[in-house]
Amino acid sequence: MYNNTMIQLGNERSDIRELFEYGNARKKLVGSENVFDFSLGNPGVPAPLCVREETERLVREMPAVALHGYSSAPGLFEVREAVANYIRHAFGAEMKPDLVYMTCGASASLTIALNAILNKGDEVVVVAPFFPEYRVFVERAGGMLVVAPSDEKFHLDMQKLATCIGKNTKAVLLNSPNNPSGAVYAEEEIKALSALLEKKSAEKGEPILLLADEPYRELTYGAKVPYVMNFYEHSLVLYSFSKSLSLAGERIGYIAVSPKCAGAETLFSAVCGAGRALGYVCAPVLFQRVVATCLGKSSDVGEYKKNRDILYNALKEYGYECIPPEGAFYLFVKALEPEAKKFCERAKKHELLLVPSDSFGVTGYVRISYCVERSVIERSLPAFKALIEEYRK
Amino acid sequence: MYNNTMIQLGNERSDIRELFEYGNARKKLVGSENVFDFSLGNPGVPAPLCVREETERLVREMPAVALHGYSSAPGLFEVREAVANYIRHAFGAEMKPDLVYMTCGASASLTIALNAILNKGDEVVVVAPFFPEYRVFVERAGGMLVVAPSDEKFHLDMQKLATCIGKNTKAVLLNSPNNPSGAVYAEEEIKALSALLEKKSAEKGEPILLLADEPYRELTYGAKVPYVMNFYEHSLVLYSFSKSLSLAGERIGYIAVSPKCAGAETLFSAVCGAGRALGYVCAPVLFQRVVATCLGKSSDVGEYKKNRDILYNALKEYGYECIPPEGAFYLFVKALEPEAKKFCERAKKHELLLVPSDSFGVTGYVRISYCVERSVIERSLPAFKALIEEYRK
Repeated sequence: MYNNTMIQLGNERSDIRELFEYGNARKKLVGSENVFDFSLGNPGVPAPLCVREETERLVREMPAVALHGYSSAPGLFEVREAVANYIRHAFGAEMKPDLVYMTCGASASLTIALNAILNKGDEVVVVAPFFPEYRVFVERAGGMLVVAPSDEKFHLDMQKLATCIGKNTKAVLLNSPNNPSGAVYAEEEIKALSALLEKKSAEKGEPILLLADEPYRELTYGAKVPYVMNFYEHSLVLYSFSKSLSLAGERIGYIAVSPKCAGAETLFSAVCGAGRALGYVCAPVLFQRVVATCLGKSSDVGEYKKNRDILYNALKEYGYECIPPEGAFYLFVKALEPEAKKFCERAKKHELLLVPSDSFGVTGYVRISYCVERSVIERSLPAFKALIEEYRK
Repeated sequence: MYNNTMIQLGNERSDIRELFEYGNARKKLVGSENVFDFSLGNPGVPAPLCVREETERLVREMPAVALHGYSSAPGLFEVREAVANYIRHAFGAEMKPDLVYMTCGASASLTIALNAILNKGDEVVVVAPFFPEYRVFVERAGGMLVVAPSDEKFHLDMQKLATCIGKNTKAVLLNSPNNPSGAVYAEEEIKALSALLEKKSAEKGEPILLLADEPYRELTYGAKVPYVMNFYEHSLVLYSFSKSLSLAGERIGYIAVSPKCAGAETLFSAVCGAGRALGYVCAPVLFQRVVATCLGKSSDVGEYKKNRDILYNALKEYGYECIPPEGAFYLFVKALEPEAKKFCERAKKHELLLVPSDSFGVTGYVRISYCVERSVIERSLPAFKALIEEYRK
């Protein structure tokens, strides 16, 4: 009687959300200090002080009518201007406020951009491992997801990518720093990808777009994240402040369309149209203003680095095989048996909530979100040890 | 190259948004005190004090990590519980937190509900005049909009409605207090509609849903707004705090599914699935908490009443034909020539920004949003007078 696709999406939820809900129920049952919930990418380091200061200042000083009223659909002009200025200064890329569209976070940036560009049957190429909701978003926008395998270190494999890009490819969707692998694609990789996209665009007779999904841009441990617009003309950056400013629940981000994009103005109109059709009237205004003041600031990445080091070193010592994360706050660990889901079920018995890699398009791994309180990591270590010892018996 | 439907939606924008942007540009040119912008339903009465107090308290007292982190997709459980309790106590309707889904405002409530229930070709019946975005939302969700005319006072016409509801009708979408007419459908109307829907559901062999879009529920001038769930089983209430708490830019509302709805749990799953597919991860969390504390409170409706009285009385005195608004903050006025768009163009020359009724599904009227500052209304009166005198020459 209702829409079956939606019922199915609602029932299955995402594996990640499912585990998060299980964790909440479990915490009520056995005490929250005894459950090690590594399921969600919910920032565990507080927002930088500027967030609180600016929120308080706005609420205190601005008349409520002006503060909480609608903004234009693409956002407050002064906010879009601040974002454009920031992109120009921080990354040396061309940008103007007219091509910045404020969104309700990364997922909104993705669904709006995909609905703007896709026609029925268009293909979007993603590199495995990838954020599982990509499939949901691409398919609901009428497109088809094509998964390109990565190399053994989860970096770009140009040969494999080349075979996945063809006449029906509308866009390549890239996520760096990567959720879940923690890989940061290097400048040479982006250059090689750009060359490949130029060649493939020429063959297709129409520019293939590059969508950079960058909620983790600021969360790196030394690696530099190349700004795609500086390497490839037909680029869109899909950004969110969820992780950089630890504002995941406030739903605030943006889409920036490169002025060099084919038909950039038309593309921007399509973005506005898609935002409208999906019911996004405007991005939340209080946080539009807050993030404009906090551009370039970020939560303390050092805290995530400490978490990473403790967890990575301990797990290596116990005998786990893990990829050292260059960015984001996920550790991608090889499961101790071929089926990651079975491994996760056994981990659950030690109250370790890990996400199996299957829905990320890769088998045999688990994702550990280490954006949790330090104490959770420290208290979880004996459980990780016990788990691997159990497998050795 | 991009999606043509989206480009078109982005280019045309809505008439209302278009006019709002024109007004902003015009204000820069001739001074904001000389432009009488009645285009947008942007609340002009400040949020009640509880909004500011609760926002400040939360920012001051709650740790940032807990305050700004993700909530579950349908919202914070304690917030859904507060909403369910409020619905039970204020309206005497059955409700439970499991059937409350927090959204990013009214448009999100609409798009999520429509995507949850519609299959390709399903029809949604609306009563003219209606909010123009209904068409956009229904069509993008795969449905078809069927427009039922109303009676001469813009109330429900059961005979006309009966001819519009048929085998393909999935839902009737009702908006009361009505934007743009200000009509509030009385209890007898809702009862008659319920009887009609029961009869039509029996004929169809499947329950037809009743969707009540209620962002203006609290903004009435004496009229009582019946709670649809008390009259018809298969009801959903789509709510937004945009108008009642003057929080239009913060994007916060909810969907409440009646427990008596056919397959209520399945429908709720579809709502969750639709929210997911459209990229709504969760409703903004700070304002989830704020509205939970402010349930039942509202901005000062007396201020809107004064605006209504000043404007309505003056326009009647000048000779305009208007519908006296029972609720919401719109005055629906007969245009002084058959084509409302031409009339609006002439009004623009007097710096009066009025919305033509065509996109609302009715010809020959204009919508005046009187949710503006009192002084705008007062200063605009000579312009309204000059406009009608110009027509009399």
